[in-house]
Amino acid sequence: MMELTEITNPSFIKKLNRDQMVELAEEIRKFLIGKLSVTGGHIGPNLGVVELTIALHRHFDSPDDKIIWDVGHQAYVHKILTGRAGDFDTLRQFKGLCGFPKMIESDHDVWETGHSSTSLSAAMGMAAARDVKGDSNYVIPVIGDGALTGGMALEALNHIGHAKTNMIVILNDNEMSIAPNVGALHAVLGKLRTAGKYNSAKDELEYILKKIPAVGGKLAAAAERVKDSLKYLLVSGVFFEELGFTYLGPIDGHDFNDLERNIQYAKKMDGPVLLHVITKKGKGYSPAEDDKIGTWHGTGPYKIETGDFVKSSSVAPSWSGLVAGTVQKLARVDRRIVAITPAMPVGSKLESFAAEFPDRFFDVGIAEQHATTMAAGLATQGMKPFLAIYSTFMQRAYDQMLHDISRQNLNVFIGIDRAGLVGADGETHQGVFDIAFLRHMPNLVIMMPKDENEGQHMVKTAIDYDEGPIVMRYPRGNGLGVTMDETLRPIPIGSWEVLREGHDGVILTFGTTIPMALEAANILFAKGIHVKVINARFIKPLDTAMLDTIFATGMPIITVEEAVLAGGFGSAVLEYAHDTLQNVAPIRRMGIPDQFIEHGNVDELLAEIGMTAGHLVENMESFIKMQAVEREQV
Amino acid sequence: MMELTEITNPSFIKKLNRDQMVELAEEIRKFLIGKLSVTGGHIGPNLGVVELTIALHRHFDSPDDKIIWDVGHQAYVHKILTGRAGDFDTLRQFKGLCGFPKMIESDHDVWETGHSSTSLSAAMGMAAARDVKGDSNYVIPVIGDGALTGGMALEALNHIGHAKTNMIVILNDNEMSIAPNVGALHAVLGKLRTAGKYNSAKDELEYILKKIPAVGGKLAAAAERVKDSLKYLLVSGVFFEELGFTYLGPIDGHDFNDLERNIQYAKKMDGPVLLHVITKKGKGYSPAEDDKIGTWHGTGPYKIETGDFVKSSSVAPSWSGLVAGTVQKLARVDRRIVAITPAMPVGSKLESFAAEFPDRFFDVGIAEQHATTMAAGLATQGMKPFLAIYSTFMQRAYDQMLHDISRQNLNVFIGIDRAGLVGADGETHQGVFDIAFLRHMPNLVIMMPKDENEGQHMVKTAIDYDEGPIVMRYPRGNGLGVTMDETLRPIPIGSWEVLREGHDGVILTFGTTIPMALEAANILFAKGIHVKVINARFIKPLDTAMLDTIFATGMPIITVEEAVLAGGFGSAVLEYAHDTLQNVAPIRRMGIPDQFIEHGNVDELLAEIGMTAGHLVENMESFIKMQAVEREQV
Repeated sequence: MMELTEITNPSFIKKLNRDQMVELAEEIRKFLIGKLSVTGGHIGPNLGVVELTIALHRHFDSPDDKIIWDVGHQAYVHKILTGRAGDFDTLRQFKGLCGFPKMIESDHDVWETGHSSTSLSAAMGMAAARDVKGDSNYVIPVIGDGALTGGMALEALNHIGHAKTNMIVILNDNEMSIAPNVGALHAVLGKLRTAGKYNSAKDELEYILKKIPAVGGKLAAAAERVKDSLKYLLVSGVFFEELGFTYLGPIDGHDFNDLERNIQYAKKMDGPVLLHVITKKGKGYSPAEDDKIGTWHGTGPYKIETGDFVKSSSVAPSWSGLVAGTVQKLARVDRRIVAITPAMPVGSKLESFAAEFPDRFFDVGIAEQHATTMAAGLATQGMKPFLAIYSTFMQRAYDQMLHDISRQNLNVFIGIDRAGLVGADGETHQGVFDIAFLRHMPNLVIMMPKDENEGQHMVKTAIDYDEGPIVMRYPRGNGLGVTMDETLRPIPIGSWEVLREGHDGVILTFGTTIPMALEAANILFAKGIHVKVINARFIKPLDTAMLDTIFATGMPIITVEEAVLAGGFGSAVLEYAHDTLQNVAPIRRMGIPDQFIEHGNVDELLAEIGMTAGHLVENMESFIKMQAVEREQV
Repeated sequence: MMELTEITNPSFIKKLNRDQMVELAEEIRKFLIGKLSVTGGHIGPNLGVVELTIALHRHFDSPDDKIIWDVGHQAYVHKILTGRAGDFDTLRQFKGLCGFPKMIESDHDVWETGHSSTSLSAAMGMAAARDVKGDSNYVIPVIGDGALTGGMALEALNHIGHAKTNMIVILNDNEMSIAPNVGALHAVLGKLRTAGKYNSAKDELEYILKKIPAVGGKLAAAAERVKDSLKYLLVSGVFFEELGFTYLGPIDGHDFNDLERNIQYAKKMDGPVLLHVITKKGKGYSPAEDDKIGTWHGTGPYKIETGDFVKSSSVAPSWSGLVAGTVQKLARVDRRIVAITPAMPVGSKLESFAAEFPDRFFDVGIAEQHATTMAAGLATQGMKPFLAIYSTFMQRAYDQMLHDISRQNLNVFIGIDRAGLVGADGETHQGVFDIAFLRHMPNLVIMMPKDENEGQHMVKTAIDYDEGPIVMRYPRGNGLGVTMDETLRPIPIGSWEVLREGHDGVILTFGTTIPMALEAANILFAKGIHVKVINARFIKPLDTAMLDTIFATGMPIITVEEAVLAGGFGSAVLEYAHDTLQNVAPIRRMGIPDQFIEHGNVDELLAEIGMTAGHLVENMESFIKMQAVEREQV
């Protein structure tokens, strides 16, 4: 058997015998457990799909046949089998192998993912293109049981089942997506899993059916119905059958015989087929197999022998934990408070809240739209819902924020977690659009704290605020380790804070870029340049009184934000300046340019786009010089 | 019986006898047919729910019990029964009765709608609030069969069925939402409708069940399965039962006996119940009853006797028709072209395309997310999908535009219909956010034509363009009646057009506000002021060469857009000016302020927010004067 790093494409798999396939699976597992112990990554999902991925590449001809990985963090095995094993040392690192499918990496990556539940719609598009062109390739979306509850996946199921399009959907059911799964569909799958296969019982059932005595009169119709009903037994998977799919399963996702037989069977069928494949997350690595709450879904580095995680050095509280913890503290005295998460109880650190207030905690599954509008519904009844949602996933609930929360001006506290660059997850997960897509929504307050102490006060601010929706952004990772006040106090809405005085220029910034601004101010100070640094903690509304004062001085202003520039915070400052006829205010903006930001260490990414203290210093120096020249010309 | 206009609240319904209820239904129908013949409105959906609405208000205590109208355009009967009959002469007019539920109109409007598929999530929020508070009111979302296919409704079904929350869902199945319904769920409902009621057959089925002989050995398990399977017969509605709902139906939505019996039964049940109510759209008015394609869903004024619509006076082509027609023409020679609509084949004028190219046309149902990502999937295979979508509904597919189309830079032509103010539909439907939420997406081209001739060339531009996604916005209603060129020609990407020369000031605008700008320029000309008017037909990318030239003159610039100001086109101009250090460029912006715009005639709405030629004249005059003063001071 060749080394994994020698693989250039998956065609070799077709020639393997069963023993070699088992051996290949073992080698891949060993490889993943070893490599990911160093780089971190989505170990659990990938160990679960080793046999499935081998079987798919054995029976389909990628990339002519389109294998589409929903979410995509389970595509490592696919990457190995398509010639990328040699790149795993750089996994999820700057300029290294992406943690998700990526077209520029390989022709075998026919669709890029990151967010869940897109695979069925993409597959429908690819299948429709095939049919219009008269081609005959297979289209094979691979979707998890968690992702299936996302609204767009259900929309797609409804369309595909109706259109009767040829497609082989692999339902990768690992009984647990990121967090233990919720939802009625989960129960549907659970029943199917425990029922075992009905197909083999077909003959027996038909025998029994014949035993039902012939009856006449009005009972005849009823007897006919009984017989009809048996189709539900004979075919199984009634839920999917009702939606127009042929259901095959449940299939043991770690048994090559079972997998191959069913894949071959599915290839011969007309119309949409759903293969219900049962897999075990973390299969073959006991710490990950034993995981009950999703700790091993995606990890940092770990020790292979013990499964102990290599500890982060930060002693500061995590942002998610700080916000969830403060909400929990306030919930003890404020019975209006409830918490909602779309399938991220662990990531959003809401386990403790859930344990203390089980009746006031709602994990709705991967369902950002429903989560957001459910929060609106709660608010109409005088509750104070805390909706914890990652910035990148809030993108899924844009209309629900606008049409349901902002338009009805409801008292929802939206905690936007992972705001800003998130690092290793890359393009699909950077939380850099939320300011631009939320700022134009009427009635919203948007804020971001400079540190975890201000963060806890902002939670208090949000809970106390009762004039409409309020958004608090906070970054991925940990706080700065500052001293925490004992007593919580609300911060006046729309108030900024001067962090450092200066008379040569002004830096307006908020959140994660404040340390960079202060560092730049220090460097400039050493050069004899005194810049004012402002914590613009409210992105909406702006502190217009403070802005007026600054504009009046004529000092050059640079806005800095770890968010997209188009329509962002800096633009809000420009808009205010021009709207109030202070259009001579000299303002420059620093932030994320009009491009997607790849994966890598956040500092590397910021440096790549010119967002460092050094760049800020240069920018300010040149700006001050330019302004001085202009003044002289005047 | 009292006059409808004398009704103040629905409590009187509880005291009516059956004859009086029938009489009330008749009066309401007559009232609606008469009033809407003058004002226009959603006649079909409301005629369909007359008995249902009466029955709901008879058996529930609104507003303590929460009746939630999905979409909301079927709430006219509810408005009559809650004391608003006297306002129907002002329906959908400026400062008049809203065409959707509106909290400020009545305490009985507990949830505001407009967009579809939100009711179940809102209901879940309200039910959760009730349960946390220990209250015992009923929660009754009323959702149509079309709205049920929207992803967020399916997300909610999944959650509600799992949580077993007490709730009575009314599935208002009129066999046709706006357009004839599509999707597998439609087939599910169809089967239920034709199957009739199983409940009454329960005894008979149990009798037959007993006739199955006892068997032993391995057949015993199979026999057990047969018995299990019968539950599907006994309960019916297996699809909803699988999701955790108790299914009751089908129920004749125009038969008070059937409605009342089932509502009373549902009130006694625990957990979520789904009442499958069959209604007839347009019931009681034959032109609307006979409608097969959705013409009578929402209408303008009509002649009661004949059902003839009062013709609009415009002879210019409708924008939707122009765009769809040009796409169709090009599709004859370009086999890459396919068209997709999320349930709006009539509104988007795609019937003709569908008739000519049935295999290249996809109506995916109310499923904007799926429609958008399916378009992306098609584009990955070299197709050129035309996605026709209303601006307000594009809000539902924000993440699909960003994560799937823009990020993968796919060649999708997105036709954003009903861009700008739409008038009578009001707050929930104004197409004023799309520029602000699309402009920050990398790789997008965004354009809007000044008239239908430029419009047809823009369609050609979009079809020819193969460097990524391209968006063409066009307004509701008809073109200007200009002469149409015979030959289509692409417009250079990012090129603006000077419509009128001038040296005192500049108006930058695009689309529907160009006539206003030209009118203002005429008025100013009469006063001796010469302003340049520019057709800024590309919102992204900007014509930066032209902007540089303008900035160099130092002329005051006013940007005008029928779209939200925050992060809009004007902000793009500000951003470019400051990014290129031309930050002294004097720029003011006119557009939609930070508020929701209610319903009314578009001209009235524009006047209300100060967007008229007169305001533009004033603004330009004062700006020129201010700049002159500043120059003198210098």
